[in-house]
Amino acid sequence: MDRKVLSYIRDNKLLKSKDKILVALSGGPDSLCLLNILLELRQELDIEIAAAHLNHLLRGADAIGDEEYVIDICNTMGIKCFVRRLDINIYAKEHRLSSEMAGRKARYDFFEEISEKEGFNKIATAHNANDQAETILFRLMRGTGLDGLGGIKASRDGKIIRPILCLSRSEVEGYIELKKLNPRIDKTNFERIYNRNKIRLDILPYMKENFNEDIIDALNRMALLLQKDNEFIENLALSLYNKYCIEDSAYFIIKKEIFIEEEPIATRVLRNALIKYSKSNYDFEMKHIYEIFHLAKKNSGKLIHLPNGIYAENIYGDIYIKSKVEKYHIDNKIEDIILEKNNINTNEIILDNFIVKFEVITDYEMSQIISNQNKFTKYFDFDKIKNNISMRNRRNGDKIIPLGMTGNKKVKDIFIDMKIPKDERDSIPILCFDNKIAWIIGIKISEEYKITDKSGNILKVVVERKEY
Amino acid sequence: MDRKVLSYIRDNKLLKSKDKILVALSGGPDSLCLLNILLELRQELDIEIAAAHLNHLLRGADAIGDEEYVIDICNTMGIKCFVRRLDINIYAKEHRLSSEMAGRKARYDFFEEISEKEGFNKIATAHNANDQAETILFRLMRGTGLDGLGGIKASRDGKIIRPILCLSRSEVEGYIELKKLNPRIDKTNFERIYNRNKIRLDILPYMKENFNEDIIDALNRMALLLQKDNEFIENLALSLYNKYCIEDSAYFIIKKEIFIEEEPIATRVLRNALIKYSKSNYDFEMKHIYEIFHLAKKNSGKLIHLPNGIYAENIYGDIYIKSKVEKYHIDNKIEDIILEKNNINTNEIILDNFIVKFEVITDYEMSQIISNQNKFTKYFDFDKIKNNISMRNRRNGDKIIPLGMTGNKKVKDIFIDMKIPKDERDSIPILCFDNKIAWIIGIKISEEYKITDKSGNILKVVVERKEY
Repeated sequence: MDRKVLSYIRDNKLLKSKDKILVALSGGPDSLCLLNILLELRQELDIEIAAAHLNHLLRGADAIGDEEYVIDICNTMGIKCFVRRLDINIYAKEHRLSSEMAGRKARYDFFEEISEKEGFNKIATAHNANDQAETILFRLMRGTGLDGLGGIKASRDGKIIRPILCLSRSEVEGYIELKKLNPRIDKTNFERIYNRNKIRLDILPYMKENFNEDIIDALNRMALLLQKDNEFIENLALSLYNKYCIEDSAYFIIKKEIFIEEEPIATRVLRNALIKYSKSNYDFEMKHIYEIFHLAKKNSGKLIHLPNGIYAENIYGDIYIKSKVEKYHIDNKIEDIILEKNNINTNEIILDNFIVKFEVITDYEMSQIISNQNKFTKYFDFDKIKNNISMRNRRNGDKIIPLGMTGNKKVKDIFIDMKIPKDERDSIPILCFDNKIAWIIGIKISEEYKITDKSGNILKVVVERKEY
Repeated sequence: MDRKVLSYIRDNKLLKSKDKILVALSGGPDSLCLLNILLELRQELDIEIAAAHLNHLLRGADAIGDEEYVIDICNTMGIKCFVRRLDINIYAKEHRLSSEMAGRKARYDFFEEISEKEGFNKIATAHNANDQAETILFRLMRGTGLDGLGGIKASRDGKIIRPILCLSRSEVEGYIELKKLNPRIDKTNFERIYNRNKIRLDILPYMKENFNEDIIDALNRMALLLQKDNEFIENLALSLYNKYCIEDSAYFIIKKEIFIEEEPIATRVLRNALIKYSKSNYDFEMKHIYEIFHLAKKNSGKLIHLPNGIYAENIYGDIYIKSKVEKYHIDNKIEDIILEKNNINTNEIILDNFIVKFEVITDYEMSQIISNQNKFTKYFDFDKIKNNISMRNRRNGDKIIPLGMTGNKKVKDIFIDMKIPKDERDSIPILCFDNKIAWIIGIKISEEYKITDKSGNILKVVVERKEY
């Protein structure tokens, strides 16, 4: 079995000498198999290995048992083990994610944090060929394209690697038995309430019995072919990106010549531009891309709204991708809104086009705070606020100490510097603490309320656009 | 509904003014819907319409009922209707096909024959969006690539068109109800014994209930995207075909430079070459293509066997695709085998590497005979044979009147003309009637026993290679 994994590692160039691998170790059969095989190959491959385990605190005593088991195993094997506990239910609520998505995000964040801190250059996860088949069917049923049908990749960005993606679940089980390992069993794997389990327990067995004994293998072979086909077109599109897309700080221009290209190229260049401009993982759908195709045939001046707070405008046939930020609260003048500091945590400000949400956070990781910040999510030192939090439009004479500076600057000058059109300036919302400007929303925050190493409680403010 | 079909026809350029369409009419809901919608659009599109129906004689009285129904409908509508009866069970046995495959082949052959005879330039079939989803899932389960996942295409070679591929089964049923049509119902559609029906009755409903209400739509949208991606790569590969592939009458050369190309291109050029050289629909599998990749890294002189009676040889890095015909009976000297004419129909000659099968046919279509002929399937005038049929290797002084010629020619000269190596000549099997050469197998047939308009009974001889 280790030979099969070894040749998979070599074929896909997953590892090189001196690599330091952090193995994601749940304690289940797959991760145990992965860890054991990597240990067997450790000398031959000249790699270092440690393990990391995130306790999701989801299954009471079972979860604690998993954690203890993982620590034991690593002690016996003489490898380092990094463990953290995180209540995924709370995390999911905080990030507005399903518990499955939240678990995934929390795990990867944890693994990346540990590998950065501790100097690991690769993270190994234990996806197997059955996981691959299930992923493909799941995506197929939900609607996907060539990229999605390629399924899980042997490696992602050269950082996350899946060395046992070539093994079927029964091969993993065979290995576990052969090596007399005693993995922990996740009981939720047998409950049909999870979609993934419906595929595993209903769909795949039915297909296997009625259509193809080797369905897992067939889907894995297909995935590999499709990955190559997709990569081929993606690379072509990437090589043409700069030919058709001009990146400006405020907007991107997609030149009209793109629409002469073959559709598979044109759609991919467009999608790449949308993702890059909106700096978002949000998966733009093909219907949005086709809306842009349609827009390109319309008159100059027409525009369409897109997800992620951006829009596309036809300007003499070229497509300009712009952010809605400058425009989206025209005609949405704000009456002064004043909230008490003490009950801010339960408050939301709901305006015509957007919602402002507040959250006081007392327990946080600075690195996480920094990575979560963006144009519409900001963090402030909550303890520096004395009485109230307010929201209003600009007034004559408004001043702010912009982040990173020491002196006051006129808000008017900031608008001018940032080329915000005059007629839009009056409708940009401004967040104040004790009547001092803390955030010209979407534009600038103040130095006075920034978070520092010394901050205790911090205030998270999220401005969400309402759906169109 | 007709507007939806109309825009689908226009988007996919399925029809143009003055087209003469032969509609494949089973009498079921789909084909009835197709026929009716095309009739509604007849004037607007400026097209001519007729129908064709092949009675498979599979379901007794039901099949006769279908036939009568179809004739009635066409009479009422005032359009021409072409009907033929063909026993698909017999046809399937004859062609060694499953009854489903046989039905498909027989239908398309019939439609093509009628359209050629009667001057129709397009054949319209009634596949709908559900058929598309079922096809995709079927192929997915059996193992496929990008091409297969694209499913059914709106048109094939511009000749076969599927105007209602954009309609779901429920849209078709809604139309049938709205127009108060009374289609025939194929009861076998509800039997799970057919794989297709298992997808229809089990898999898709399960997916719809548990994963995606719009699964049919999702799969159809996916198919369209994948078709475009595949076409894009296929066209690129096609444009590079002549750069890498040299076609000689006896062999094809694939130049070694092909292996520097990206894999999606190289694999497609290779597959196209294999299909073109072997003149066969046989779907070479990816494993065969990868075997050639592997062969290219080996030493000159190495070869691998491929399906369809061909092999690939590495000659200084270039890949030669050759036919096995010259070689495949070396070391397989034939003792004279003599069979009586009268019981030939039940005879087979089984040799080490191949089987020779005989069949006396009394009822046949000349056009079908001609189209079925190939290097290893020949037809002879059975009534010209007096006593016996024999098989042997060549002898000194052998002569034949080659097809299309009037005088005798030495078999030796034929071998020399066709550059058959000396050491192979002794092992080529020769079929004789009454001790006269009728067929140097794989090489030449005789003028003396060719079939003509006046032939009564004919003898079909098929030489099949045994599987390796």
